[in-house]
Amino acid sequence: MSEVKAKLLTQIAEPMTSSGNKVTVVGIGQVGMACAFSILTQNVSSEVALIDVNADKLQGEMMDLQHGSAFMKNAHVSAGTDFSVSAGSRLIVITAGVRQKEGESRLDLVQRNTDILKGIIPKLVAQSPDCILLVVSNPVDILTYVAWKLSGLPKNRVIGSGTNLDSSRFRFLMSQKLGVAPTSCHGWIIGEHGDSSVPVWSGVNVAGVRLAEINPSIGTDADTEKWGELHHQVVKSAYEVIRLKGYTSWAIGLSVASLASAILRNTYNVHAVSTLVKGEHGINDDVYLSLPCVLGRNGVSHVVKQILTPEETKKLQASAALMAEVQAGIKF
Amino acid sequence: MSEVKAKLLTQIAEPMTSSGNKVTVVGIGQVGMACAFSILTQNVSSEVALIDVNADKLQGEMMDLQHGSAFMKNAHVSAGTDFSVSAGSRLIVITAGVRQKEGESRLDLVQRNTDILKGIIPKLVAQSPDCILLVVSNPVDILTYVAWKLSGLPKNRVIGSGTNLDSSRFRFLMSQKLGVAPTSCHGWIIGEHGDSSVPVWSGVNVAGVRLAEINPSIGTDADTEKWGELHHQVVKSAYEVIRLKGYTSWAIGLSVASLASAILRNTYNVHAVSTLVKGEHGINDDVYLSLPCVLGRNGVSHVVKQILTPEETKKLQASAALMAEVQAGIKF
Amino acid sequence: MSEVKAKLLTQIAEPMTSSGNKVTVVGIGQVGMACAFSILTQNVSSEVALIDVNADKLQGEMMDLQHGSAFMKNAHVSAGTDFSVSAGSRLIVITAGVRQKEGESRLDLVQRNTDILKGIIPKLVAQSPDCILLVVSNPVDILTYVAWKLSGLPKNRVIGSGTNLDSSRFRFLMSQKLGVAPTSCHGWIIGEHGDSSVPVWSGVNVAGVRLAEINPSIGTDADTEKWGELHHQVVKSAYEVIRLKGYTSWAIGLSVASLASAILRNTYNVHAVSTLVKGEHGINDDVYLSLPCVLGRNGVSHVVKQILTPEETKKLQASAALMAEVQAGIKF
Amino acid sequence: MSEVKAKLLTQIAEPMTSSGNKVTVVGIGQVGMACAFSILTQNVSSEVALIDVNADKLQGEMMDLQHGSAFMKNAHVSAGTDFSVSAGSRLIVITAGVRQKEGESRLDLVQRNTDILKGIIPKLVAQSPDCILLVVSNPVDILTYVAWKLSGLPKNRVIGSGTNLDSSRFRFLMSQKLGVAPTSCHGWIIGEHGDSSVPVWSGVNVAGVRLAEINPSIGTDADTEKWGELHHQVVKSAYEVIRLKGYTSWAIGLSVASLASAILRNTYNVHAVSTLVKGEHGINDDVYLSLPCVLGRNGVSHVVKQILTPEETKKLQASAALMAEVQAGIKF
Repeated sequence: MSEVKAKLLTQIAEPMTSSGNKVTVVGIGQVGMACAFSILTQNVSSEVALIDVNADKLQGEMMDLQHGSAFMKNAHVSAGTDFSVSAGSRLIVITAGVRQKEGESRLDLVQRNTDILKGIIPKLVAQSPDCILLVVSNPVDILTYVAWKLSGLPKNRVIGSGTNLDSSRFRFLMSQKLGVAPTSCHGWIIGEHGDSSVPVWSGVNVAGVRLAEINPSIGTDADTEKWGELHHQVVKSAYEVIRLKGYTSWAIGLSVASLASAILRNTYNVHAVSTLVKGEHGINDDVYLSLPCVLGRNGVSHVVKQILTPEETKKLQASAALMAEVQAGIKF
Repeated sequence: MSEVKAKLLTQIAEPMTSSGNKVTVVGIGQVGMACAFSILTQNVSSEVALIDVNADKLQGEMMDLQHGSAFMKNAHVSAGTDFSVSAGSRLIVITAGVRQKEGESRLDLVQRNTDILKGIIPKLVAQSPDCILLVVSNPVDILTYVAWKLSGLPKNRVIGSGTNLDSSRFRFLMSQKLGVAPTSCHGWIIGEHGDSSVPVWSGVNVAGVRLAEINPSIGTDADTEKWGELHHQVVKSAYEVIRLKGYTSWAIGLSVASLASAILRNTYNVHAVSTLVKGEHGINDDVYLSLPCVLGRNGVSHVVKQILTPEETKKLQASAALMAEVQAGIKF
Repeated sequence: MSEVKAKLLTQIAEPMTSSGNKVTVVGIGQVGMACAFSILTQNVSSEVALIDVNADKLQGEMMDLQHGSAFMKNAHVSAGTDFSVSAGSRLIVITAGVRQKEGESRLDLVQRNTDILKGIIPKLVAQSPDCILLVVSNPVDILTYVAWKLSGLPKNRVIGSGTNLDSSRFRFLMSQKLGVAPTSCHGWIIGEHGDSSVPVWSGVNVAGVRLAEINPSIGTDADTEKWGELHHQVVKSAYEVIRLKGYTSWAIGLSVASLASAILRNTYNVHAVSTLVKGEHGINDDVYLSLPCVLGRNGVSHVVKQILTPEETKKLQASAALMAEVQAGIKF
Repeated sequence: MSEVKAKLLTQIAEPMTSSGNKVTVVGIGQVGMACAFSILTQNVSSEVALIDVNADKLQGEMMDLQHGSAFMKNAHVSAGTDFSVSAGSRLIVITAGVRQKEGESRLDLVQRNTDILKGIIPKLVAQSPDCILLVVSNPVDILTYVAWKLSGLPKNRVIGSGTNLDSSRFRFLMSQKLGVAPTSCHGWIIGEHGDSSVPVWSGVNVAGVRLAEINPSIGTDADTEKWGELHHQVVKSAYEVIRLKGYTSWAIGLSVASLASAILRNTYNVHAVSTLVKGEHGINDDVYLSLPCVLGRNGVSHVVKQILTPEETKKLQASAALMAEVQAGIKF
């Protein structure tokens, strides 16, 4: 201790090292950093740890955040290549993983990411046995299943960011079409995050007024107003943003921060997240897909049983079957 | 469980009942409710419990807050006349107590409030052994000492709201005089909360420029600009507000919320709060007075050793002696 | 200017006196103060002016808020019995008014409050010709009509707080029954604020799942789960809270702050507020009732056309007829 | 308008297109986007426009932010390569500019950036004649001068982000050394942003206790505790972060958001920003350097006259002379 400190301060008690709401973000690419920055600037947590294998970038990102801590209500930011930096986390956000190589099969990609998660998940759980795991890495549904398997945690505590972002994109596009705020536009995208996601048109509403009551053909090919385009745009959004700016970051970061807030503040908010769906909508496989879930400090406490059309159910089941098939090929 | 709920939701896991950042407010007069409302609207905690002996008012205040929970990020509010409602609190704010009767001596008032605290403190600590106690009831310095004695907790975990409010009032008055934002006006009022508080003129500054460098007689009778008036106004403020509106509420509520935020978020912010000052500034009694303290999840971790003038030190010591004298007469 | 100020600061330019988002609250009873405090603590505006006839209480409330301004991001608070203090407001919240005397007819009460508004509204509009008027005083629907008439403003810029609070209470009660966060429970109470309000059961949903799909008799006498009780409790809530604590304050304050946020931030959020409903749901009178409205910086830009049952429509029309009848007796 | 919209909504009035607190960010590199994202996530403004020459990236960044608008209180985000998108801005943040090429002289760099600003500033001011210009591009002090010259605006309305970030870095490093929150560590870095910035050691304090009172040699070579290292680390920070992660972003974004908040909310907070310093500290040239300034809706209303040592003053004057020399070579 410096002499100045000794002369300035009388120690009364050891400060506590943790705030009890610690969040660790694993992987500090654009997605991981947008998650961390959203969580910090929106005051979701006052304590964030970063983990990555790239020690230099890790140090740089940590310093850059720390230099702004006076503007983030004095949040604490730490970082390390060693998993001990994550000790005592309440929530762990996994953004680590590799991208698909040209010509690589889906299964090969999943296997490579599984191998990465094998080196990560058990160590994280060992450091934070009470944590909730929130997987963001893609393909998110299968990797959440993998993380669940590797973690040994109960299913409620392993969650994928899933279609929370797809739903947010849908609500923004709907807001543009109607001139109504996104948070007043209600609509749910469920199922697999990405190309085969399922928009539940029956639930799309403003102030409880279902658009399907006004336009019964909404979402179908028969719709002359082509509202189905909104879902197509949602699906294309990720590709489009990646094509335009090289990656997606802000929206996924904010989406993850909204999930983190529901979990850490124990609010019981409903979000579309990837959860083990066995038993729902006639699915009998141990697969993860997004459904509206009640989130709190114990992770997913409830799944909302939506009333789906036969076609919607069929799409979900098809996704589930595909997941199960890929999963069967994974070597743990 | 209703049938609708059963058909709407599949339970995956038991929800957790606590957020880990629970705050209990004891006493729901204007001060207690302003504390609770400030903590809730400023998102300092997502879970507040209220305790009082007046069951009707308690129910009414709880309902009124709950009806607004959609506007407070879904914060949970509970209330009860039984101490079990406070179980597992991280922070307990004590605003209970009686006011001075006409002709009543200070010691008699202290004794009556001590008797009230006797019935409260041990039960609170039994329900929340890891809590921080934050005493707001007046006379706050002596009652914080009493609460410490009754609680059996280490001194760092029993704190009085002290002169955090006086300092805030000082900074507002200074901001009015200079046309600079209160948070950019720095000044510390220490010692006893109330009439005999001590303004530390040497520390009064804007952007590190001490007003005492510009006006060496600042705070003294020799000062032709009469800056000492600011401290007189601080002292008179409570009386003045009570005379005008009948009680004080908003500022003390916000002041307490700022302390709660530093404690729950573990920020190590410095606030002037009432702490056991034995050993500081030549004080040898077990008394509580306000000094700038570093606050975090473990309560007061450090006291800032200000460099006081002999006169400031003498005033502090006189307050301490007075406290000790009154305390000697208390029957525990 | 003090010499210290002159030596401390070089003036570069005249500071601006207004932030462009000024809010005036007229009437500083429990409701008015809860509105002001909610708006300040939730950072909806950084500048609030208070107006009342009680100069002492006004001064006390202003001082109490100012003493906490360091904890409210340095918000500016002013107050005065003169209307000039409201000059340049973007939003004006009217909470002034008298309560029903025993044996007084509804019309007599309305007339007395109309007489009060006559002395207020024109002066406010003169000081802030671009303002939005938000009426909170009861009976809110008729008094919003009166304020509109007295103001000469276009209908979109005169709004009543209406059933935004009733809807919030409904969503809280629904959340209690289902274990889901209030903001994830959707339901709209429309029509007259108070006893004859209308719950629109068709719109009640969680994640787009209508409870009426699960329980087709919901809200009717045939419902064995008695969900209709929720609406009865909403209606009784105000009476109950008043009986228990003497008045309502927090929830209405937060409800008004949510409306203020949508207006000042120009978000196009949908809220149930009292608006001129002529032309909606077969109503042909110039009356104000609550319907879901899109709110922004221009006030109400759109009304959502809910699909009501014949019975719901009939109730709305009955309320409208009653309003029209009372209004016919008002002497302007 | 879609038929669904027509059937869902009755238009009452034209919505307003602006919130009155619009911010435009010019240049969407890492710095510009961190500014925009900080301003949006911290709710400093509800309306942000982006301008850049790269239409694709611009579209991608806009979409990515828009997809998250439900998580940012429904903030509006627009973007365009045309300056009309900035119309009616209250604040314009300039992050556009090129970096130093190898072997390029400082003057050559300044000239290239001046040429860029020539094509930007007059068009921005034409679209938003009442705006405040906040320049972030480097070298920030000279480019703020250039922007001032090009804009024709009064000096109070053209500001450089200056040493607000340097001061924030200093306070973080100080907080690490003392175990006290950054916002409770006070210290000011003034002068030129970057290598020749000046730490004002006399103002460095915690709770009004100057570290120079405890350690009179602080900041000098004679100091055995080497506190001067803190300033060296501040200077090296930018280089270090750039070396480690390739650029700086988060801290400058947050720093700019803090300035934007003071300006838009009209708080009169004191921040170290680059301002026209002619007349201060014996400087007689028309140059921009950072000094503590009072910020509000009119930009810089006052400069704080710090009491500097002769050495500190000399360093400031030397920076000023250097600025003046470079400026003399600029071709407008």
